[in-house]
Parts: sequence; C-alpha cells; structure tokens
Amino acid sequence: MARLLKAKEAADLVYAGIRERVSEHQRNGVQPRLATLLIEGDPASAYYAKSKQRMAEKLGIAFDLHDLPADISADELIRLIHSLNTDARIHGMMLELPLPKHLSATNIAARISPLKDIDGVTPANKLATLTGEAGLYPATPQACIELLRHYGYPLEGRNVTLIGRGQTVGLPLFHLLQREQATVTVCHSRTPDIASHLRYADIAIVAAGRPGIINREMVQPNPKLIVIDAGINETADGSIIGDAAADVCEAATAVSPVPGGVGTLTTAVLFRNLMDAIQLQHQATREENNQ
Amino acid sequence: MARLLKAKEAADLVYAGIRERVSEHQRNGVQPRLATLLIEGDPASAYYAKSKQRMAEKLGIAFDLHDLPADISADELIRLIHSLNTDARIHGMMLELPLPKHLSATNIAARISPLKDIDGVTPANKLATLTGEAGLYPATPQACIELLRHYGYPLEGRNVTLIGRGQTVGLPLFHLLQREQATVTVCHSRTPDIASHLRYADIAIVAAGRPGIINREMVQPNPKLIVIDAGINETADGSIIGDAAADVCEAATAVSPVPGGVGTLTTAVLFRNLMDAIQLQHQATREENNQ
Repeated sequence: MARLLKAKEAADLVYAGIRERVSEHQRNGVQPRLATLLIEGDPASAYYAKSKQRMAEKLGIAFDLHDLPADISADELIRLIHSLNTDARIHGMMLELPLPKHLSATNIAARISPLKDIDGVTPANKLATLTGEAGLYPATPQACIELLRHYGYPLEGRNVTLIGRGQTVGLPLFHLLQREQATVTVCHSRTPDIASHLRYADIAIVAAGRPGIINREMVQPNPKLIVIDAGINETADGSIIGDAAADVCEAATAVSPVPGGVGTLTTAVLFRNLMDAIQLQHQATREENNQ
Repeated sequence: MARLLKAKEAADLVYAGIRERVSEHQRNGVQPRLATLLIEGDPASAYYAKSKQRMAEKLGIAFDLHDLPADISADELIRLIHSLNTDARIHGMMLELPLPKHLSATNIAARISPLKDIDGVTPANKLATLTGEAGLYPATPQACIELLRHYGYPLEGRNVTLIGRGQTVGLPLFHLLQREQATVTVCHSRTPDIASHLRYADIAIVAAGRPGIINREMVQPNPKLIVIDAGINETADGSIIGDAAADVCEAATAVSPVPGGVGTLTTAVLFRNLMDAIQLQHQATREENNQ
C-alpha cells in the first residue's frame, strides 16, 4: 500500500507562520481582513466559503462573507469588487467559483486588484506565474509543490507527468514545476495514452477534474510513482473524491489523499497569500509616498 | 538520410498572402510601415535587420530602420518607443535583441503598444499566448508549428518533446503546441537525460540556443523522429548553425535545416503579424469611435 501523503502537518506549519504574521500585523495596528464573494446557487462553494470563514476566525483574520444573489449582474459585481479594491481595510479578495452562467469568470476576476488577488486569478498574477516575477501565485499549484517538498521528494531533475491543463491549476502548475527544474510532460483530454506517460515519470500530478483518470492498472508498470491528486470531485452521495481512482494506492509508492491532501494545504496557502498581499500593499503604498 | 524540411515554399505562401493584404491596404490609402529599433554593437542583429529591410521592400512595406547608439539610455529609448506608439503611420515595431547590458529587454519591450508588438514580446501578448485570446503571438513559435503543418505532420494527439524553455521561444511554443492538442514534454538545461525524452516523441523541437544539444546517437533509438530546429547559433567562422548536431540527419526521419528552416519562416510570420497588427489597430480605432 502506498504511503499516504496527508497534508495536515504541512498545513499546520503554514498556519503557525500565518498566526505569527497576523499577531505582528495586529501589534502594528493592522487587522488582516479577507472578503469572500459567494454567489448563491453552488452548495459546494458555500461549503468551502464557510470552512474558510471558520479557519479565518481561528487565525485571527477578519472575514467578510458577501452572500450575493444568483441573478447579480456583472456591473453590480464589478462595482462591489471596485469598492473592495479601494477599501484599505480589505487586504484580500476571493471570488468563489464557479460563477452562474451569465457571468464570465475571466472578465470578473480581471477586475480584482492584483495586490488583493489572493488566488492569483488576475491577468497580472497569471503573467507573474508564467515569468517568475513577484506576485500572488494561485494557491492549488503552490500546494501541490509544497506537499512534495514537505515529504522530502525533490523536483529538480525529476520527470513530472502533469494531467490537466486548466487555467486555474494545470497551466500555472506547469510553470511552477519547470521553475523548480522538473522536466514536465503535460497530458490532457486529447492525450491518447496517458498511461504511457506514467511509465517514465517520477511524479504524477492529476488536476483534470475527472475522477478515475488514472487507475491501478495504469500505474502498475511503475511502482515507484508518487501521485499528487489535486482533483476535487463531488459524488452523487455528496462525498468528495479526487481524480485518481482509489485503487491507485495499491500500485503507487505514495499518494496524496482526497480529502486531506492538496485541498487542505491549498486553504493554508490562500491565507499565506493574504499575508503576502498585505506586504505587497504596504510596499506599493511606500513606493507611492516616495514618488 | 532525413527528409529536409526546407521552409522556402511555406514562407513563399505566407508572402503571397501578405502581398495581397499590402495591395489591399494601399488601395484603401494605408501604407503598411514597420519600425525597427537596432542598437549598435551586435553584428548579427544588424544583419537580420538589414535582411528584413530588403524583404520589406520586396513586399511593398515601408521600413524605418532606427540606428541607435550603443550607449542610448533607457529613457531615450522609451521616449522613442512612445513616439512610435502614438504615430498612426507606424503599424509595427521590432526591438532587435539582444540589447546592450545596461538595458533590460523585459522593461523596454513592455513599453511597446501591444497593438504594434509584432513579435509578441509585451506582457499583454505574452498573456494572450498563454490563454489563447486574440493578440500578436511571437513569430518563431508560430513558425515551428506552421512548418510542421506545411509538411503535413499533425500535432493533435502527438508526443512533442520541446527542448528549451526561454521566454522568447520555448515557453510560448509550449502553449501553442498544447493548444494544438499535442502532449508536450519540456526539457531544459537541468533535464538529466534528454535522450530518454526523445524515445517516446513523435516530434522534437529544439530551441535551447546550444549547438549540438541533440545528436545522432540520441535520436538513433527512435528513427521515426521528426526534428524541428529553432536554434540560431553563430560559429567562429561566422556561419549559422542550429541546435541539432549535423549528424541528426543520419538518424531522424525528417529535420528542418538551419539556415533555411524555422528562421526563414519566422521572417514571413513577422510580416504577417504586421498585417494582423494593422487589422487590430483599425478595430481598436473603430471601437474607440463607437464609444
């Protein structure tokens, strides 16, 4: 049976660092504050928003949950984002996805100030993720890499097969992985034989949003494979499963669980991004004042 | 011996299309015009700028060559770029690289109007290349893909091993290739065993800027390999060679020559980007007028 790469310990280490930074900000008279925009209609989003709220409270971070009606117009939403952008008390903003069909996530996300964009969804932060410049990088890709690091699996010089090429996880993760000096192969729905790309891999990362996209049979020829599962899928009975089939545990050397793996660490990284956002905002204010 | 994937025919087809578009613009009273910024000190850049000038003349495109002193300051250069950005007679701008050490190519390139950025070097066009939105994409990556298309080699579902991850060729090419539905592996200087990634590849594209980075011995186990060479290296005697060693021809099924391959098509794509730039500028003007 595979080693189970649970994320709780790694997440707790991140939270410990965050608590220190929150205390320091509070000593300096700054109360870290996160605004979450939740549009009615997606129960999973509501669940995640609430669980972030509980975590924020534990961390001493103020949390403004904006419960918005399902028929909110793009203009109204953009006005709200703009008011949060200019409100100095707000340090970070999370737009809970998916949005209702009448709203374009790309267009709406682009209105968030890059300095408050704690999930790296704005064009400026997407570009920073690509070039390696300073910015707020998306949380899930960071969590995948940090989970590997926590368990002592190096990336430099390793072959990583990444399954999934979405704008939220796959593509930014590709860029982070190659900057960690991994040799990355990006598989996707049009890859005819994903199994063939698992054979030469040291690490497989699944972020396709398709449960069962890799299974025991596909992993078997390479029993040294380490599998990081960034999938979050809801089953008919409401439980959460990953992209790797459960039987991958019987073939791989190590597997990150879902839940309790990448998602657990992602929440911690989001709050750490909030801390980094405060720093970026202070820096920007100093630079403005110096001009 | 490998089939030689010469680019002249493909380039001529592109040029034929450009000539038609130039004539149409001229009939509408628009004289397509390209400005090239050449900073003294790099003989190869001077050579390429001059050869583009000759091609522009053949195509009926006006060509302004700005010969700039090696000690030009960033401010002076940016002022010139700004004046070209706002000059409606200028439709495209090329900043010949490399720049002297005292200038940052990234910072300078970012000042070019994205609508006149015919080599896709601005942040807006880098981002468009990543997301697939409309924009001006870098020329060399486009040329690699078009050369394969010209010779009837499909990309969808194929394994492509890309060697090189630079901001100019490798990374944008990765994005274009994956949007063509290829499964792409990106190798680089920290990949321990590049040869192992040639074995399962249908196509290898070399864009590392390092002559000899792949050779006959590395290709031999996979005689069906198609090699696209995007390298341009100057030897001590002044001749131009690619990144693939000459003996790759003896092992691969097809190889693009250097010179006469990717570079030849790149020049054509640059001028086609100029035509696209004119269209984008007209569109932007129309949109402004409608507001």
